[in-house]
Amino acid sequence: MDNITKLVDTFKEQGLLLPIWYEDGAIKVLDQIKLPFVEEVYTFTDVRQVADSIRTMVLRGSGAVGCAGAYGMLLAAIQYRGGKQDIFEAAGLLKSTRPTAVNLMKTVDEVVQAVKDAPEDGIADAVELAVCNILSRYLAYEHALGEYGADLIQDGDNILTHCHSGALAGSGYGGRALSVIRKAHEQGKKIHVYSSETRPYLQGARITVYELQKFGIAHTLITDGMSGYLMQLGKIQKAVVGSDRVAANGDLLNKVGTYMHAVAARENGVPFYTATSSHTIDLSLARGLDIEVEYRGEQEVLSIAGHRIAPEGIRALYPLFDVTPCRLISGIITERGIVRAPYTENIKALFSK
Amino acid sequence: MDNITKLVDTFKEQGLLLPIWYEDGAIKVLDQIKLPFVEEVYTFTDVRQVADSIRTMVLRGSGAVGCAGAYGMLLAAIQYRGGKQDIFEAAGLLKSTRPTAVNLMKTVDEVVQAVKDAPEDGIADAVELAVCNILSRYLAYEHALGEYGADLIQDGDNILTHCHSGALAGSGYGGRALSVIRKAHEQGKKIHVYSSETRPYLQGARITVYELQKFGIAHTLITDGMSGYLMQLGKIQKAVVGSDRVAANGDLLNKVGTYMHAVAARENGVPFYTATSSHTIDLSLARGLDIEVEYRGEQEVLSIAGHRIAPEGIRALYPLFDVTPCRLISGIITERGIVRAPYTENIKALFSK
Repeated sequence: MDNITKLVDTFKEQGLLLPIWYEDGAIKVLDQIKLPFVEEVYTFTDVRQVADSIRTMVLRGSGAVGCAGAYGMLLAAIQYRGGKQDIFEAAGLLKSTRPTAVNLMKTVDEVVQAVKDAPEDGIADAVELAVCNILSRYLAYEHALGEYGADLIQDGDNILTHCHSGALAGSGYGGRALSVIRKAHEQGKKIHVYSSETRPYLQGARITVYELQKFGIAHTLITDGMSGYLMQLGKIQKAVVGSDRVAANGDLLNKVGTYMHAVAARENGVPFYTATSSHTIDLSLARGLDIEVEYRGEQEVLSIAGHRIAPEGIRALYPLFDVTPCRLISGIITERGIVRAPYTENIKALFSK
Repeated sequence: MDNITKLVDTFKEQGLLLPIWYEDGAIKVLDQIKLPFVEEVYTFTDVRQVADSIRTMVLRGSGAVGCAGAYGMLLAAIQYRGGKQDIFEAAGLLKSTRPTAVNLMKTVDEVVQAVKDAPEDGIADAVELAVCNILSRYLAYEHALGEYGADLIQDGDNILTHCHSGALAGSGYGGRALSVIRKAHEQGKKIHVYSSETRPYLQGARITVYELQKFGIAHTLITDGMSGYLMQLGKIQKAVVGSDRVAANGDLLNKVGTYMHAVAARENGVPFYTATSSHTIDLSLARGLDIEVEYRGEQEVLSIAGHRIAPEGIRALYPLFDVTPCRLISGIITERGIVRAPYTENIKALFSK
C-alpha cells in the first residue's frame, strides 16, 4: 500500500481537511456528528465499519461518500486477500448504505471493474491503483471547480453560503461551495463569508464555520433569517451554495432555506451561484418541483442539539430540501466550467464538451 | 379595589391569556422567559418588582408593557397610600425601564394625570378607575384589530406568522397578529397556522405555539428557512406578522427574518399583512431603512437555550430587527381599520379619522 500511503501524505502536505483516509493498513474516519466540539477519528479494519459510518452519517456529503466507497473497497481488498467474491460482496454492502448516492455507486463500481480485470494475484494492487485514481480525480475536480468559481469572486466580496458544502463533504480541499471560496482566498482576494446556521440540523453553525476557521478565512455566523437584511444593507455581494441535485432545466435542489436566500438575493441584485459536480446534474429530472422532497422526523425542529425548544404536543415539519427555480440562479459552477442561462441548452452543451 | 377585581374576573371568564393582572392586593406576572416549560407566576407587592420584570423581559411585548405600566401605577397607589409624590416617583421608575416603549410612557402618564386631578383622599380610587379604563381600552383595541383582520382570512387558510405577536405581548386576547388569527378561528373559519421558530431567541417555538395550543388553533412549527418552500407548494395562503414600528411610508420594522418571509410571499403571490396598534406607526420616521437597528450580543446566535452550537472563536451577528419595504406589504391591520397602499397618504388619513 505504498502508493495510497504516499498519496495521503501529499494530501496532508497540501493542507487538505480529509473526511476519510488510509493509514497503516486501516481506514481513518473523522466523526462529523461530533464536530465541532470533539474531533474524534475512528480506525476501521473491517469494511462493515466503513459501511456503518456512511449509514449513520458519521461520514456525509456526496463527494466524501464517493471517497468512502473507494476506501471501503480498498479495505475489503486488504481484509479479504485473495477472494474476488468477498470483495464483490463488500461492494454490495457499501452500495446498500445509500442507494441514491450517485457518487458512491460510481466509485464502488469503478473499483469492482478493476477487480474483475485484475489477475488473481494482483487484486490488491489493482484496487489500490483504482482508489488512487479516484481520489486524485476527485481532488482535481474540486480544484477545477474552485478555479472556475473563484473567477466570479472579487476582492472585498462578502459571500453568503448556506448549509455545508465543504472539504469534509468532498475529498478534502473545499468540496463544492467552499472550494470556490478557498480558491478565491488562496488567490489573495480579501473575502469574508457569512455562514447561515441552517436549522434544523445546524450544518452551517457546526461544520462550515469549523472549516472556514481551519482555512483561515474570515467569517461570521448568522441565522437563516438574517441574509436578506444584510443584503438590503449592501453587506453581501455574492451567494454560493452547494447542491443536492440540479434538474435538466437548472432548477436547484438544496438544503431547505436555500430558496429564501435566493429570493432575497434576486430582490437585492446579489448574484446567486450554486457550485456542484456535473454528476449532480440529473438530466432525467425535467424540473425541480417534479421531485418528491424527503421529509425527516419533526424531532429535529422541535429540539436543538437534543434540547427540546417547543412545548409538548406541538407538531413540526421538516422538508429536507427546497427547490430554487433556475431563474433565480446566476450560474452553475462545475468542474467542467460555469453554466449560465438558458440552462436547458447550456447544460446539454456542458455534457457534449 | 372592587372594580379592578371584577374586571380581571371578566377577563378570565372571556378566556384571556393575561401576561399581568391584579389579585388580592398584589400584582401577578407570568414569567415569559421560563415559558413554555414552566408556567411560573410571581406575586408582586412592590412597584419596584413590576419595574424589574419589565427591565428583565420577564414581561415583554409592547401591549403587555403598556398594561404593566398601568398595573405598576396601581400597585404604587396601593403601596404608598396617601402620598402623591411617592406615586410620581414610581411613575419615573416604571418609565425608566424601557424609555423607548411608547405604550409604557402613555399608560404611566395617563395614570399620573389621574393622580394629579384626584383629591388627596381619592387617589387610589382615581388610579383604579384610570387603570380599568386603560385595560378595557387595550382589550377593545385587540378585538377591533382582530375583527378587521379576520375579514381578510378565508375558511381553509394556512397562515404564516413570525416571532410572537400574541396575547402575552398584548392585553390577553391575542395581541396583534394572533388577535387576527384568534378572531378568524372564533368566527368558525377552519384555519391552520405555520409558526416560524424565529431564531435566535425562538419566540415562535416557545411562545407563539404555546398560545395557539391554549387557544385550540391548529398549528405547525417550522424553521425560519421553510416558509418559502411551503409557499411554492401552495401550502400557505396568508402571512400575518406583528410590528415593532411602522414608518410614515408604511415600511415595517419587525423581528429579523420578517423581510425574507415577505420577499418569499411576494414571489409566490401570498398576501403579507402586518397587524399593529396605530400607536406603533411613527410619523416622524420617513422610511424604515433610516432607522439604526439595534444589534444584540452575538451569544444568542452562537448558542441555543444556553447550549453552544458553534465552535469556539467564531463570531456572529444579531440584528434584532429587519426592514420590510412597504411595497411588499398587502395591508397594515390596525384597531382603526386596515391601511393599504399608497401608504403615505392612507396612513395620514387613518390618523385624521
